[in-house]
Order: sequence, then C-alpha cells, then structure tokens
Amino acid sequence: MQFKDIKVTDPFWTKYRDIVKTKLIPYQWSVINDDKDIAIEKENAGAYDAVEKSHAVENLKIAAGLVKGHFYGFWFQDSDVYKWLEAVAYALRYAPDAELEGIADSLIDIIAQAQEPDGYLDTYIQIEAPTHKWTHVSLSHELYVMGHYIEAGVAYYQTTGNQKALAIAKEMGDCIDANFGPEENKMHGYPGHPEVELALAKLADETGDAKYTRVAKYMIDQRGTHPNNFFEEQLKNVQTKKIEDPYFGDASQPDPDAPYFQNDVPVRDMQSAEGHAVRMTYLLTGMAHVARQTGDESLMAACQRLWEDITQRQMYVTGGIGSSAPNGEAFTFDYDLPNDTAYAETCASCAMAFFAKQMRDGRQDADYGDVLERELYNGTISGMSLDGEHFFYVNPLEVDPEASAKDPMKSHVKVQRAAWFGCACCPPNLARLVASVDQYIYTVTDDAIYADQFIGNETTFDNGVTIAQSGNFPWSGEVTFQVRAAGSVDTILAIRIPAWSRHNYQVTVAGKPYAGVLDHGYLKIKQTWSGTTTITVSLDMSVQEIHADHRIKDDVGKVAIQRGPVVYALEEADNGKHLQANSVAADAQFTVTEDNSTFAVPTVQLTTTGTHTDAATVPGTLYGASATVLTHAQPLVFIPYFAWANRTPGEMMVWVYQH
Amino acid sequence: MQFKDIKVTDPFWTKYRDIVKTKLIPYQWSVINDDKDIAIEKENAGAYDAVEKSHAVENLKIAAGLVKGHFYGFWFQDSDVYKWLEAVAYALRYAPDAELEGIADSLIDIIAQAQEPDGYLDTYIQIEAPTHKWTHVSLSHELYVMGHYIEAGVAYYQTTGNQKALAIAKEMGDCIDANFGPEENKMHGYPGHPEVELALAKLADETGDAKYTRVAKYMIDQRGTHPNNFFEEQLKNVQTKKIEDPYFGDASQPDPDAPYFQNDVPVRDMQSAEGHAVRMTYLLTGMAHVARQTGDESLMAACQRLWEDITQRQMYVTGGIGSSAPNGEAFTFDYDLPNDTAYAETCASCAMAFFAKQMRDGRQDADYGDVLERELYNGTISGMSLDGEHFFYVNPLEVDPEASAKDPMKSHVKVQRAAWFGCACCPPNLARLVASVDQYIYTVTDDAIYADQFIGNETTFDNGVTIAQSGNFPWSGEVTFQVRAAGSVDTILAIRIPAWSRHNYQVTVAGKPYAGVLDHGYLKIKQTWSGTTTITVSLDMSVQEIHADHRIKDDVGKVAIQRGPVVYALEEADNGKHLQANSVAADAQFTVTEDNSTFAVPTVQLTTTGTHTDAATVPGTLYGASATVLTHAQPLVFIPYFAWANRTPGEMMVWVYQH
Repeated sequence: MQFKDIKVTDPFWTKYRDIVKTKLIPYQWSVINDDKDIAIEKENAGAYDAVEKSHAVENLKIAAGLVKGHFYGFWFQDSDVYKWLEAVAYALRYAPDAELEGIADSLIDIIAQAQEPDGYLDTYIQIEAPTHKWTHVSLSHELYVMGHYIEAGVAYYQTTGNQKALAIAKEMGDCIDANFGPEENKMHGYPGHPEVELALAKLADETGDAKYTRVAKYMIDQRGTHPNNFFEEQLKNVQTKKIEDPYFGDASQPDPDAPYFQNDVPVRDMQSAEGHAVRMTYLLTGMAHVARQTGDESLMAACQRLWEDITQRQMYVTGGIGSSAPNGEAFTFDYDLPNDTAYAETCASCAMAFFAKQMRDGRQDADYGDVLERELYNGTISGMSLDGEHFFYVNPLEVDPEASAKDPMKSHVKVQRAAWFGCACCPPNLARLVASVDQYIYTVTDDAIYADQFIGNETTFDNGVTIAQSGNFPWSGEVTFQVRAAGSVDTILAIRIPAWSRHNYQVTVAGKPYAGVLDHGYLKIKQTWSGTTTITVSLDMSVQEIHADHRIKDDVGKVAIQRGPVVYALEEADNGKHLQANSVAADAQFTVTEDNSTFAVPTVQLTTTGTHTDAATVPGTLYGASATVLTHAQPLVFIPYFAWANRTPGEMMVWVYQH
Repeated sequence: MQFKDIKVTDPFWTKYRDIVKTKLIPYQWSVINDDKDIAIEKENAGAYDAVEKSHAVENLKIAAGLVKGHFYGFWFQDSDVYKWLEAVAYALRYAPDAELEGIADSLIDIIAQAQEPDGYLDTYIQIEAPTHKWTHVSLSHELYVMGHYIEAGVAYYQTTGNQKALAIAKEMGDCIDANFGPEENKMHGYPGHPEVELALAKLADETGDAKYTRVAKYMIDQRGTHPNNFFEEQLKNVQTKKIEDPYFGDASQPDPDAPYFQNDVPVRDMQSAEGHAVRMTYLLTGMAHVARQTGDESLMAACQRLWEDITQRQMYVTGGIGSSAPNGEAFTFDYDLPNDTAYAETCASCAMAFFAKQMRDGRQDADYGDVLERELYNGTISGMSLDGEHFFYVNPLEVDPEASAKDPMKSHVKVQRAAWFGCACCPPNLARLVASVDQYIYTVTDDAIYADQFIGNETTFDNGVTIAQSGNFPWSGEVTFQVRAAGSVDTILAIRIPAWSRHNYQVTVAGKPYAGVLDHGYLKIKQTWSGTTTITVSLDMSVQEIHADHRIKDDVGKVAIQRGPVVYALEEADNGKHLQANSVAADAQFTVTEDNSTFAVPTVQLTTTGTHTDAATVPGTLYGASATVLTHAQPLVFIPYFAWANRTPGEMMVWVYQH
C-alpha cells in the first residue's frame, strides 16, 4: 500500500516551504550561476575560506563542451547543482512553476551533454585531470557527486516525468556497476565519502533494477575490510605524490585506517559512530535502505546499534551531531557534547533526518519519528535565516561573540549566518529536506497507516482512505485527523505519541475518549472506517525543563527549555549580556505568548521570571565566599532555538542554569 | 633596614625545599648533562614534542671550545642551565653542600670560557649562526638567556662569594649596555621575550651600578613605540628570509604589532594584560623593579593597572594565568577562564609570584601577599610531582583522561606529569622559586617589619630584632611569632591578615587580645620591643565554598572548596568517575583530617557528604524532564589541588556543582 497524493497544508511548514520555493531556490540558482554578487566575508565563511564565486553550473557547461574554461571550486562542486535540482524537484510538487521547470529541464540538457558515453560525470576530473579518473576514489568524491545526481534525477523524474533526467541517473548507475564489484575486472573499492550507496538504493527503488542495490551493497560490505588494497593504496598514491593532483597531491591526508573515513572496521563490526559525521550518517542511510531492500538482518542490526549510539550518547538536544571541529566535523566520544565549541553541521542534522527515515521505513518504532521531529524543528532549520538567504554551517548551543572573535577554539562558531560558503554543502541540503518534508509524515504498511509527524496535510491513500490532518503544530498540541473512507476500509491508523507527551495526552475518536496501550510509542486505532471520522489528539504542551544525562559534563546543573518539540534559547537581544548569569527555578512558571512580529515566521515566545546574579563575589574580586552573592529577579524571554541569530548579533544560550 | 639571616623552619616548605635540594636539583643536573635516561613519552611532552636529550651543558662546552659538536635543543636551551644554577644558589643557603658547590663552580668555569670577550654569550648563535648575532633579537632569546645567567650569577655570588660568577654577569650587563640604548651607535631595540629587564635590575641592586637599570628602562620605554624599525624590521627580515636561520627562517611568525609580544602599544598605555603570559609577567616584574629603582610613578601606575587586570579578571582560583593554548600560552579576554582547556603554565604562575614580590617591595598592601600566597600553595607547586622528578607544563582545573586523549582542543591537558620537556622552562623555574621562598616572607621598611607569609622561620633583622615564626601553615591557622629584641627596639610588626580570614581572626600580644583596624590588610603592632614577646595569630581555617565572579562562564553554579590558602580538588582515585555528577550543598559540613599517608608530604583531607546524580534522565535516553532525576548521597573526598596526579591517572575537578 502506498499513498498517491499528499498536500501539505501545515501553517509552519507551508511558510518554510514557501521560503524555500520563493527565496532559497532562486537565490541558490543565482549563486551557482555566478549571477549574484555575494558579499562573502572571510569571517563568516564557515569551515572553509570564502570564495568569490560558485562556478558550479559553469563547470558543467565546460565539461559539456558548451564553453571553454577551467574548473573552479571544490572538487565536489557539482553536488551543489544536483542538490539544488533535487530541491526543485520537490518544490515543483507543491508549487508548480513552468518557468522554473523549464530552467531545470535546460540544466538537465547540459548535464546530459557533460556526461561521458560510459555514464561517468565528474567535472573536475573531466576538465582538469582526466587521467585521474577513478585513481583516488578514497578522496575524490567522484562517486559522491554522481550519487547526488542520481538522487536529483530520480526525484525530478518522479515529479515531472522527464525521462532524460532518469536516463542520466541510470547511465551513472550502470557506469558505477560496470566499474565496481567483486568481479576480477572491476575495482574492489568504495568511496571515501559515502553517498552513492543511498542514491543507488533509491535508483533501485525507482527502476526496480536490483543491480543498483547489489553494487551499493558490495561497497558497503567491502568497506573497512582489511587488508584493503584499493582504499589504502589510493591514499598512499596521493600521499607519496604518485598522483600529482593539485587538490590532493600536497595535502596531508588522514590515516586510511582512522575512523574518520569509517574504514577502520567492517560496517557490521562498528560499535559506535565515529569519524566525519556526514560521511557516517550518509553511510548509515544507505546501509539501512540496502538492508531493507535485501532483508539483510545483520546489516540492519548494525544500523540499529549505531542509531542508538548516536541518539543515546552523541546527539545534542537540538539534534545536532558531530560535536568536534578540530577532529574534522566529527563524532568524538560518548557524552562529549560541549555547547560553546559545538560543530553540529547543518548537513549532519539533515543526514540524520535521512537516516531516521530509512530506519523508520524498516521498523515500526516511534523512536525514529521522535528523533526526526527533534531534527525538523531544531537543528536542521537553524541552519537557515528566515530570509532564506543566509546560512549556518555550524549550529552551536551557546555563543559569545567575544569568544568567537578571540578564541581560536571557537572561531568556527559564527554569530551571524553567512551569505554563502566555499564548501556550500549545507544550504542546498536543507533546501531539499524542507521541500520534501511531506515524505516524512506517513509510513504505510500492509495493514496500517502510521502518522509519524504532526504536519498538517491532506493525503489520499491507495486503500481509499483520505486523511486531512490539521492543527497549528508545533505551537499548539491540538491536532485533528479527519479520516474519510470511500466505502468501508479495514485498517489501522497508528498515531505517534511523542516521547515528550507520552505521560500526558488525550485522544478522542468520533467524540469519545480513546485509550490504548502504546505499541512502540504508537497509539493504534484499528477499526472499519466509513464516512468521515474525526480524531482529536491533545498533546502536552506544558513548558518542560529538560535535563541531560549526567555524563554530559557541559549540561550539569542546567536545563534546556522545551515546549512540544521545540527547544528554546535565550538571546542577548531580549535578555542582555551575561546570559550565563541567569537561572530558572525548577518549578518556574512560564507565560506562553503567540508572537507574530519578532520573526518572519510566527513563533511562540516563553517568558518567566528568573534570577540574575549581579555579583557572586565582592565587586573587584574574582573569587569570594558565598555570602557575597547578590541576585535580582529578572524577566527572561526564550525564543525558539531555530530562530536565533535573526536579529542584532549577540550572545545565545540553550542550556541555562537551574536553581 | 634589611635582614641578615633567615632560616626557614616551616614543616611544609622544609619538605618541599628538601625535595628540591635532594631530588630535583640532582635530577635536573643529570638531565641537562644527558646522564639520565629520561623516559620521555611524546604524549607527555607538553607544549612541545619530546626530545631524546637536553644537551644544554654540552652546548656550553662546545661554545667554550672544550669539545667539538653541534648545538642541539631549543635556541634558549642555555637558560635551563642558568635556572638550575640559580636554584643551586638558593639551595646552598639552606643546605650547604661542598660537593654541589664544587660542581656549580666548575660549571661557572665553563660558562666563563664560553663567554666572548665582549661579554656576549648565547651558545646557539656562537656555535651555529655567529653572523646572526643581534640580527633577530625579536625572536632569538639572546637577551633572555643572558638575563637568566645574570639572575643566576648574582644569586650564586650572593650565596658563595664566587667572584667569577658575578663577573660574568657584569660583563654580560656591560655587553648589553654597550649594544642597546638611545645613542646613535647603539641598537634601539629590546627583546621579543622580556626577561633581561628584571635581571638587569637585580644586577643594579647588587652592584649599585645604575647603568644596568638605565639600559633596562630604555628597553622598557622603547617597547611598543611606533614606528619601531628595530623590532619590526627584525621580524620582517626573518619572514622574508633575509635571515636564513634554521630556527626562524621557515617559521610563520607572529605579527610584530600583535599583542603576543607586548609590542602593540607602549607599556604605559597598556590597559590589559595581553599576549604570551610569561612574556607579559616577566616584563611586568622588570617594570615594577625598575619603577621602584627610578621612582617612575607612571611606570608603577601601569604595573598596578595590569596587576589589577590580571588578578581581578584573568586569573584562575589556583593562581594560574594565561588561559589559552591555541593563542600561544596567552592571556585571552576578561573572565575567559575555562577549566578543562586551561593552559595556566607553571612558568606563568612562577612569573606571577616574581611580579607579586616586586609589587610588594614597592607598595604596602596585603593584596600582593594574598596573590603570592595563592600562587605558592596552588598553581606553582602543582607543576611538580611529589617525587620531584615529574612536571606539568600545563595546570588544568578539570581533567578527563578520555577528553585529553581524543579531543585535540584538550591535547595539551595532561593527566600525568612528564619526566622532562623539550621546552624545559618550567621545572627549573619552579625549583628556583621554591628554593628562594624565604625571600617572600618579610618585607622590611624603615619603620616596620611586614610579615607577608606564614612560613615558619627564624630571622634576625638589622635593627636587632629576631623573629621566630612557627606553626603548621597552611594546614593550621594557629601561628606564633616570638619577637626577641636586643635591648629595646621601636618598630612596627605588621602582620598580613589574608583576605580569606579578614572577617574572622584573633591576635594576642603577650597573652592579651590585640585589636586594630587593618591598614591595607595588615594588622600593625607598634611598640617598643624588649625581651621576648609572644604574638599569636588565629586565622579562620573553616572550609569555604568559593564562588567565582558571575562573568566567568565555566564556574557558574559551581564552587571551589578552599581551606586557608589551599584550593582543593576532587580526584577519581577517591571519588570514582563522573566527577561532574557530584555536587555539594551550600551549607555542607566538612570533616577535616590530617593525612600523612596518601602523599609524600603531609596534607589535610576534606570530606563531606555530597549528592551524586545517578541518572538525570530515564536510562537509555540522553534528555528528559526533571522528574526522572535520581540521586544518592555520596561521601566526597577533597585533596589539595597541588597534590593531584600523584596517584593512578584519572579525572580531576576543582570547580564542583553546588546544590
């Protein structure tokens, strides 16, 4: 059973998707075509130095032979174009736009011309280093960029029926299948940056051709096996300059065995999430998808183990993952989640959402929806300003502008979103997630419709049921489902009760209270549906003071303020400087106020009376006995975390002290 | 008025000085002579990579023409020898040792042979780069190493009367005076690493020759003036490889105007302590000494302003200064005192003690003695293990071995003291401080004897008074002064009442309570002394929970446990893992126990019943509402901070949560 048609009617996401369609997509198109005079300041450029231009479309035109010139940008620059195209594919579903579709069609024509006869397409290699084709897959991102095209091509075909878009993807898949595999005449390798695995799995879903799954599974199975001549030799060739590549020849390269590449052990032996966070979660997304396609239980078990490791030991309350900048945008160790040096890349949160979806599709457990919800309302959308034209690469949970300016350990922590990045992975990743958020609402099985997210929508299912879900989530916990059945339909409607409300919620079916034991976090309503049945869900929207596991050092003695799925923060714009001097009582009373004026989207503001320490010591002394502590009651204003840094730059703090 | 003779009888310092004399001095001698097979492990090597040998004495022998060979080590390696010699000079005062004196005399013979006819001595330049003499004073440390010799030579002459030791120092001073100054034929420069200024001031005190003060003052006055051709040209010459020096030619050098060198503004215009912490405090020590020698009030005002900046805004509760590793062992900005990434170099704490002494000699204020006491009982001696053979370069206030191993931002934070360092500045610096601690006890003016430190001693003063001070400080607050006068003597005995006891102390004179208004923190007993008068002082030795200024982010919600001047810490060896999960009540009762068995020195242990959080969330979840917090009462054992890391390596924490 599948669903045919889904229309998002949700006020929150309609607004965000409108920003993506009307602002972010045109903005990114102008950027990747170098039509925009982007004011990139070095100090706001994120993980990499600023660039003067993107050149990403131009690279494709050069590879296509349409213009002459040299490649410019990072060696994975192509992916900026493909992720934009994928976002367009999703956006056209909710906002048809013939002009935009025409632009995208023309872009696909260029991509087709750039593609080599064997299906290969990587503009850096084709333009600058054709002899390096497949010679340094451990570093080159050739498979990464083709994976991103495959995702885009499949999505664009699904939306528009553009056959060329799909054909390019299939040819790429065929090329990869022709070059990688266990056969003697193929390369026994896999990419240094996973991505293609999840893309090939999507291509298999669309085409029904299992060979794409087979080559994805081969790469997954081969990864981390030792001795591993392919991967290690490739890195060695670069290190010893056997490959004189301008990008890689001089760089000091990571140890091939280091967990950075997820290459230290075979994937089924991994006990914890290690290394570069986006690499890890893209790999896991592909693993979970392939495990489901192939019924590979040991692979699924590895996915589940690493899922639990990330979500139970290595994730910020905002959903951010990969806490370390100096380790290389990486996971570190259990409970190491510093707030003021957090990395928590926007891409990693997006990738965690992708991983959550693949796990969700394989297993009926509300845990996946809970984590996805944490990502959707916090650590992903925090990566974009509410004007749709400024972006965070890094999503800290605590910011002091003076520290960002003066402390090299915090130089990656920006106080303002940047107009663009040299390494521009994050903005289009967020665009494609938001534009496809409809795909995360329902999971359908043979006997049930699972409502995973409270995103207002109207959806028609294959079994003849139509559901209209409405409400004002995440600001209101009152959600209504109108279930309309054509004739009478036997099915289960399973509603995820979020972890934060599982102790306190009410459901009515046709006006009568409905109670049931939750099954893995879902309330299951099994009945024969006919006509229109109204179901109401009331969730616990009280303001919660959230504690962290006591092993997270930086959160001890502190609480995060959360209401529904939304994590809140203090900002200097509302609360002045020295945010750390504020504390809230364990039983603090919060006032909940709709706020339609502060930000470009409606939010809910929380206010309470906290305690501000004016002096913990005799003024002029740094340290003193406790008799000298002076405090005053101070109104505190909390805003949703995702909305921070949309006003005058200043301090921000998620975890506040509790007294 | 001066004092002739001082004998330390204090149990605490006698033990430490015994370690210095019997262990540290022989150990360091064997190291600098390459006689010791030092098990230097790279991971314990501190700020610089490990070295296989010191070679420091060998460099001098090569420069002296006694053996042939190449220079080895850092370009300031000579200073390791001189600081050892200075420690020997002080140690011989409390532990005469003909054999050691003979060794030192022979070393002085070698140094004399190594010295050039014009007084110059820098073995790196002489052996490897004679054409680079004075060509890159901004980086070379030529003046730094000569300054260290001058200090050592003066001290050794004062102890032993060795004229050659003093002659070398004077010739160096003459050489510096001949080369630096306002005259046209001299260099209008000053060193990149201040040190020589304070040494020249000491040489002026000893010789009575004001020219040494004059050249020191010239360097101080010249510093930070712009345009500044000397300093900036020198750096530029190195950067542009006009000077092809193996040490400096290839290194990327700091901006000459950057505060790192204290070269951005003239010293009298400095508003806050900036840059490399040891450079800053050595400079300040010289500035305060020269200001006193010359009666320069504007210079003294700058010293006072920077003193207040450091002690009121940039100092750890342990006395550590220079909180940043990545900024270059440097000061950062106000209230930026992170515990787990602290640098707080042992040398910087020693230098702060030197600065405190120079300020104290110029001004009658207990504040200097308070800070000195904080350094003496905490952040200086923490740099040495109680076996006298292992050392910390970095003195953190919070350590997690896993973080030190896995987090590059904490890789400088060691969990065990190292056997030696490539850059071995700290061990001999601590040795000379401990060996000369007697010099910090009294300050004598025309009309008063100021008792600054509660270090047991017997001292005869020029005015005919002898004081026997006794007690068991810092473990006991009961201190007795027996004042014996030959005939009758009119003078003031001024006793510093420490800041931590100023609200609660008792003093008796000849058995009768003595009260008086404190004058800048001193209780002044003015009388005609005759015969023997017994004075008792009772200080407040209650255990205090110390708060930090609310602007120090990392200490909010926490307290440091302090008793007398000693700051305490929790160690894993006593309290298990997850120290951050412990908290103490604001009104916690502590048991105070003498402990003669845990460490190689007697200490006092503090125990209390704290609260340990077992789970702040439902097990298996990272975040949860507060209803799920589970705690148990747990005995907590606090040990003196200076004694940490003398047992099984593990976690350590100074600032603990208060509930």
